[in-house]
Amino acid sequence: MTVVGVIGGGQLGRMLGLAGIPLGLSFRFLDPAADAPAREVGELLVGAYDDPELLGRLADGAAAVTYEFENVPVAAARRVGALPGPAALEQGQDRLVEKRLFRRLGIPTAEFESPPPPVLVKTRRLGYDGKGQRLERAAYRLGDDEIAEGLVRFDRELSLLAVRGRDGDTRFWPLVENVHAGGILRRSTAPAPDAPQALAESYATRLLDELDYVGVLALELFDVGGELLANELAPRVHNTGHWTIEGAETSQFENHLRAILGLPLGSTALRGRSTMLNLIGTHPPLAELAAIAGAHVHLYGKEPRPGRKLGHVTLVDAPPDRVRQLEHLVAGSR
Amino acid sequence: MTVVGVIGGGQLGRMLGLAGIPLGLSFRFLDPAADAPAREVGELLVGAYDDPELLGRLADGAAAVTYEFENVPVAAARRVGALPGPAALEQGQDRLVEKRLFRRLGIPTAEFESPPPPVLVKTRRLGYDGKGQRLERAAYRLGDDEIAEGLVRFDRELSLLAVRGRDGDTRFWPLVENVHAGGILRRSTAPAPDAPQALAESYATRLLDELDYVGVLALELFDVGGELLANELAPRVHNTGHWTIEGAETSQFENHLRAILGLPLGSTALRGRSTMLNLIGTHPPLAELAAIAGAHVHLYGKEPRPGRKLGHVTLVDAPPDRVRQLEHLVAGSR
Repeated sequence: MTVVGVIGGGQLGRMLGLAGIPLGLSFRFLDPAADAPAREVGELLVGAYDDPELLGRLADGAAAVTYEFENVPVAAARRVGALPGPAALEQGQDRLVEKRLFRRLGIPTAEFESPPPPVLVKTRRLGYDGKGQRLERAAYRLGDDEIAEGLVRFDRELSLLAVRGRDGDTRFWPLVENVHAGGILRRSTAPAPDAPQALAESYATRLLDELDYVGVLALELFDVGGELLANELAPRVHNTGHWTIEGAETSQFENHLRAILGLPLGSTALRGRSTMLNLIGTHPPLAELAAIAGAHVHLYGKEPRPGRKLGHVTLVDAPPDRVRQLEHLVAGSR
Repeated sequence: MTVVGVIGGGQLGRMLGLAGIPLGLSFRFLDPAADAPAREVGELLVGAYDDPELLGRLADGAAAVTYEFENVPVAAARRVGALPGPAALEQGQDRLVEKRLFRRLGIPTAEFESPPPPVLVKTRRLGYDGKGQRLERAAYRLGDDEIAEGLVRFDRELSLLAVRGRDGDTRFWPLVENVHAGGILRRSTAPAPDAPQALAESYATRLLDELDYVGVLALELFDVGGELLANELAPRVHNTGHWTIEGAETSQFENHLRAILGLPLGSTALRGRSTMLNLIGTHPPLAELAAIAGAHVHLYGKEPRPGRKLGHVTLVDAPPDRVRQLEHLVAGSR
């Protein structure tokens, strides 16, 4: 029996489990919450992410250990030899370090070394879903743990999902177009129409090779008239890649597992034009979601709470009015 | 939290769990084996299928109870109000009763009331995968628990997967062409080319309505020059429907759950021409299976044993040489 250990037991862990059990894998998760979503798909160790005893149990006999959020204590990840390796984690945890990495590799970004106002001031660490950000329109001061970014007038937000195997084999899914509201992802569409795929892949390749990366990496980008500015990277499976479960030949979750286990990567070919909508805070009854033809419903087993990601729904090759029907249903439940 | 109880914890239970967890469902299984495949996707109650105390725990607070093999004790299924209802179970458990049902509904079958030799003599109960069968070429005698069937010179074996909701809504997947060897299913292809879909659906509709059926039903058929003879029915998800996980808009597993929970049924539309190969007794290493482009690998977490179904692999819209490559790989490991 091949066991995979996962630091974190949220919905990403849950979907890793759902992708890996068909491969004959068994899962173990470490999470502080006894009702973590991944509880349904493996053994759940309840405790702190850096608890040495629990980390030992997580890794005991495991063929690979990974994580499903980027704020894992680096020491904990190191202790269990987690993949992607600690270099990626360190870069992804600090926005300033991350921006400097982008610059060093020749990947354009928003201005971040003393840009003139207006700027977005962000905490360097532990920000997610738009939390820990403020807009400064005039002269501003930064704390040591903050970074200022010049405002970017982008046309749209894109993301590139990439996966790199232990042997360096690298594959990309088609660029995704994303819509956020209130700092939270609402909708992803793949493939993003008329998107600069080759340019995005060249940027991601520099990152993957520099970090000797193993697993799935998400690169968030601003599209400014066909030029791309890197916004941030996530060293893990990513909300903007959930459509790959039905919309691609191999999902981000399965390919992440294949990568960290040293298995051949699966095809990232598109199976159809995909739209994913997040279910935030509350959601329509399952019966209403299931009534929409072709709706692939994913609920995470979490209690409703404002701003919380409770699930998502994906449509593949659906006619536009079907997509609108789903959007209305999801919006109406808020 | 919506709980589904399943009598039996084999691979069919495991795949029901994998299909239902994304809908936010939680699972409980009852199986005599502590290492039953479904252990990864829910709580496993270990004991006899007819243990009254365990049946009580299985059904406690469950929104629905179902089963994943047709030899469930009818009294046990009745006790927990399992779906599909006891009528289907009773018909499916006795080959003679089943054949008489077919005849009563005007569904053609092989001869079974004193057919002349050569005949196949089968146990009326508990036969599966070709077990409990013998060929008689001359005068023969039947035990009380046996049935003789006239040999059918069929062109091919087909199966129809159907699902009927609590409200009577009925859907069908495209007919499947199946190849058995040694009494065990080896390969399923969907859609079966030039198959009499409407005729098969009319037969299945008679069965579903007669039994006031709720859930997925599989009807095995012989194709004799375009005429169909019913061979047997299975009141459950079925090995010849595993391709629906990737090959259809909604899988047999998800639609079975939708049906028994009273949810709207999902589309059974084809996503692509599908080939499923069973992994019997032993299988190639995961790395070799995963190296075949587009191969969707499903391992059940079972110990190898001659004749045992250990997993299956599905290809969708694959070129013929890819299918042959997989067939050679699977055959080579036997």
